[in-house]
Amino acid sequence: MKKIEIFDSTLRDGAQGEGISFSVEDKLNIARALDQLGVDYIEAGNPGSNPKDMEFFERSKRQGFRYARLVAFGSTRRCGIKVEEDKNVRALVSAGTSTVAIFGKCWDMHVTDILKTSLEENIGMIEETLSYFKAHGKEVIFDAEHFFDGYKHNPAYAMQALEAAVRAGADCLTLCDTNGGCFPVEIYEITQTVCARFPQKVGIHCHNDMGCAVAGSLMAVKAGASHVQGTYIGFGERCGNTNLSSLIPSLQLKVGYRCIPEENVRLLTKTANYIAEIANLTVDHGMPYVGKSAFAHKGGMHVDGVNKNSASFEHIAPERVGNKRNILLSEVAGRGAVIKKLSHLDRTITKDSPAAQEIVDLLKTMEYEGYEFESASASLELLVLKRRGKFTPFFHIEHFKIIGEREQEMSAPSSAMVKIKVGDRYEITADEGNGPVHALDKAMRKALEVFYPALSHMRLIDYKVRVMETHQATAAKVRVLIESTDGQNVWSTVGVSTDVINASATALTDSIEYKLYRDANPDR
Amino acid sequence: MKKIEIFDSTLRDGAQGEGISFSVEDKLNIARALDQLGVDYIEAGNPGSNPKDMEFFERSKRQGFRYARLVAFGSTRRCGIKVEEDKNVRALVSAGTSTVAIFGKCWDMHVTDILKTSLEENIGMIEETLSYFKAHGKEVIFDAEHFFDGYKHNPAYAMQALEAAVRAGADCLTLCDTNGGCFPVEIYEITQTVCARFPQKVGIHCHNDMGCAVAGSLMAVKAGASHVQGTYIGFGERCGNTNLSSLIPSLQLKVGYRCIPEENVRLLTKTANYIAEIANLTVDHGMPYVGKSAFAHKGGMHVDGVNKNSASFEHIAPERVGNKRNILLSEVAGRGAVIKKLSHLDRTITKDSPAAQEIVDLLKTMEYEGYEFESASASLELLVLKRRGKFTPFFHIEHFKIIGEREQEMSAPSSAMVKIKVGDRYEITADEGNGPVHALDKAMRKALEVFYPALSHMRLIDYKVRVMETHQATAAKVRVLIESTDGQNVWSTVGVSTDVINASATALTDSIEYKLYRDANPDR
Repeated sequence: MKKIEIFDSTLRDGAQGEGISFSVEDKLNIARALDQLGVDYIEAGNPGSNPKDMEFFERSKRQGFRYARLVAFGSTRRCGIKVEEDKNVRALVSAGTSTVAIFGKCWDMHVTDILKTSLEENIGMIEETLSYFKAHGKEVIFDAEHFFDGYKHNPAYAMQALEAAVRAGADCLTLCDTNGGCFPVEIYEITQTVCARFPQKVGIHCHNDMGCAVAGSLMAVKAGASHVQGTYIGFGERCGNTNLSSLIPSLQLKVGYRCIPEENVRLLTKTANYIAEIANLTVDHGMPYVGKSAFAHKGGMHVDGVNKNSASFEHIAPERVGNKRNILLSEVAGRGAVIKKLSHLDRTITKDSPAAQEIVDLLKTMEYEGYEFESASASLELLVLKRRGKFTPFFHIEHFKIIGEREQEMSAPSSAMVKIKVGDRYEITADEGNGPVHALDKAMRKALEVFYPALSHMRLIDYKVRVMETHQATAAKVRVLIESTDGQNVWSTVGVSTDVINASATALTDSIEYKLYRDANPDR
Repeated sequence: MKKIEIFDSTLRDGAQGEGISFSVEDKLNIARALDQLGVDYIEAGNPGSNPKDMEFFERSKRQGFRYARLVAFGSTRRCGIKVEEDKNVRALVSAGTSTVAIFGKCWDMHVTDILKTSLEENIGMIEETLSYFKAHGKEVIFDAEHFFDGYKHNPAYAMQALEAAVRAGADCLTLCDTNGGCFPVEIYEITQTVCARFPQKVGIHCHNDMGCAVAGSLMAVKAGASHVQGTYIGFGERCGNTNLSSLIPSLQLKVGYRCIPEENVRLLTKTANYIAEIANLTVDHGMPYVGKSAFAHKGGMHVDGVNKNSASFEHIAPERVGNKRNILLSEVAGRGAVIKKLSHLDRTITKDSPAAQEIVDLLKTMEYEGYEFESASASLELLVLKRRGKFTPFFHIEHFKIIGEREQEMSAPSSAMVKIKVGDRYEITADEGNGPVHALDKAMRKALEVFYPALSHMRLIDYKVRVMETHQATAAKVRVLIESTDGQNVWSTVGVSTDVINASATALTDSIEYKLYRDANPDR
């Protein structure tokens, strides 16, 4: 089983995509998810270019990774100075990763017109910079920038650049279609030439400006490349990079190469959704393998065909990549899975009980309305408990009112008034906060703590808003996901409404109810 | 200059995509746009399957097309009946198009397991159905369903299906990768075999389940196919079809084939946006050639390179496809990029003027606070105009108040009251909406339309909320991005606050101010 190395650049090239902006915390979360998936390399930033990336490398030193090696990225030394005088090179060393990726120019036009230096100087820059990192004990990946365009214009010079890297001891020669404008067939032929010439490991780095990044990478692998760079869900500069969530299953399930540990292939879909969530994107519904519609069948002949033989309209079985078949306008899919997830709440629910069908139907209706329970299992549990008559409400919100105001450019804090009922007692109170939801959260808990002092230990730790059906603009539906903790447990709840206040109120109510239910049923 | 026929199925295969639904009017509008672009065929529906498609064909008879031929789509006759008894076949004839596309089974498994008939009967179904349409004087395109999968399992049978089509007089043999699971190299090799065997025109129809539909189509053309089926911006069942807006410029600008009239290539981007608008979608920002980010540059080095020589980081000149270069400003952008983007606003700003440094510093401070201008260039322009004393406010918001309420599980619509000042006149009004932001948007514009009637043409088309520093939960800062249009232009604005209402109010205000400023300074 041939091994193909997977090099993920979501945190570096991906971060150069329009509208993408990661905090250090975001980057650490994504790195952990990629490591759990089992990629070989995580390129995490350019420590010389900004302090945020430097902070990431500092903090990640305390982080143990199981599969992945962290990679710091940077360029060859600047023209006309010694490599040890280049402050970006020094920053790269101090990032402390065992692997570095160094890009150097391979297209003569870039050397003369952009760097404005001589072709010889550029060869020296490549050789000296790579030698410097090898002398510091690093594994060195040479990113041969614009290699294909360069080769098409001046093949001899492009090859000289690789030779310089090889003389310096580069561990991998990664050929880059930096502008994304090469045909897959060109990538195949040129990669084949390079593989025939050098015994070193050859890598491929494609961009999607022709919509062919995945195909170009597949062709390079066919030509002998064994290291593939991309970003996990494809975002990156301009049209993005090779989408690794498309590439990995094609190579692993269809060709039989090993990209990630076999048992992790089923994590592909989950990882895509998780990374999109952190980047505040949605996985494109039509994204190969991992999109919500990737195995959707819209009635008629296709549904009939799939029911008779799933291979009739599915190129792979969706569960192999952790995705699922989505029969539109049908209510039979997924009962088994739902039951599996819920039977611990109510042992009387079995696959064939009417209750199971009822819950599946309810879930489908709610998902259609925009609910999403995968990241909000506390809300799902409450839903089932309520539906099965196993939940006694701890309180009712009789009424709330929220007021937001701004006067002469000065905004007052938002305020909230609530009236709640517990048993036959009422509590009316108010509070203010940064924004209406914060005010409502504070007022609700202030009222409820009178009855349930344990709520004083509870706090929200995350709050996410996602706008759906965005073409209705401010009238669109919003989904609010809330993560809460009481110091011991962490749970997540969800609310959906056209009104962000209402969606938040629903998720806040679920969150408090779940805490009270757990406290009252400790052995559940 | 070799001609490659372009066959667009946006209205048929595209309409089978999840969430896509066209009215007859939508279909007529899209057909006109595709004809103006100059595609060769427009596959517009399956007249046997639903009355809406039949109505479309009726109405389109009164429509003159300049370049395109309309195509009605349907299947071979059902098993065990005579072709003239099949009501779908008869509906297809009565659609009255000069061209029909007829799909037939080429994969033996589909014949035996899905149709549940004999291999011989299926061959008869293909031959008789196609002969029937030829006898009615139609141009007949045979869509060889699952051809590649069929060929891989039973090449002799797949070829027999094509032979039946040829005996019946088919004008074009379109090879379909119906499940989208074939590698581009497989498509190349099998298409080559078919082209060597049959003198007829060979077509290609790919799906994107591996992310390789465009590449597969390019490979088929290289192997000899001269007819390409796809959908204009790629949507379709599951992961979609070959994206023609990617394929056409690659073949026409890079290989030198003729797909559409040369003078229409610059309409590619506009057509993509128009079709997306009708389908109620947004063209994916990263879509090759036609996406908003397809020629966007963010990294400092890339911006510098493009300024020196655009070929350094652009595989084609964006204006050739009617798109434009987009220099993004972010914490990694240098002063040069800022100047390039802003100099048209104020000619006195040069790279070395103190104003340039002041603006760069201001941007960095605001980005640190959570602003993000790369997706909100209208807010950026306003910021600079204000800072440079070149902006006279059109209005002031004196005061607004927003009220959200819920009583006994029933939520009332949110309401907003605003008081605005224009010159020395005041306008006080109120409105309600789905959620506080919607209410505020409506109330603000209701008040301002009294003074600026042009605002009635303006509407929001996208609204995004990003919660930052999420670990402070509901007290976290939020960033609101708003996209607006007046039917001619589209612009984006941003607001940041701890309060979602305030952040939205800021972005809404910018959005309205930008519209008013543009209207007042048309030659800016």
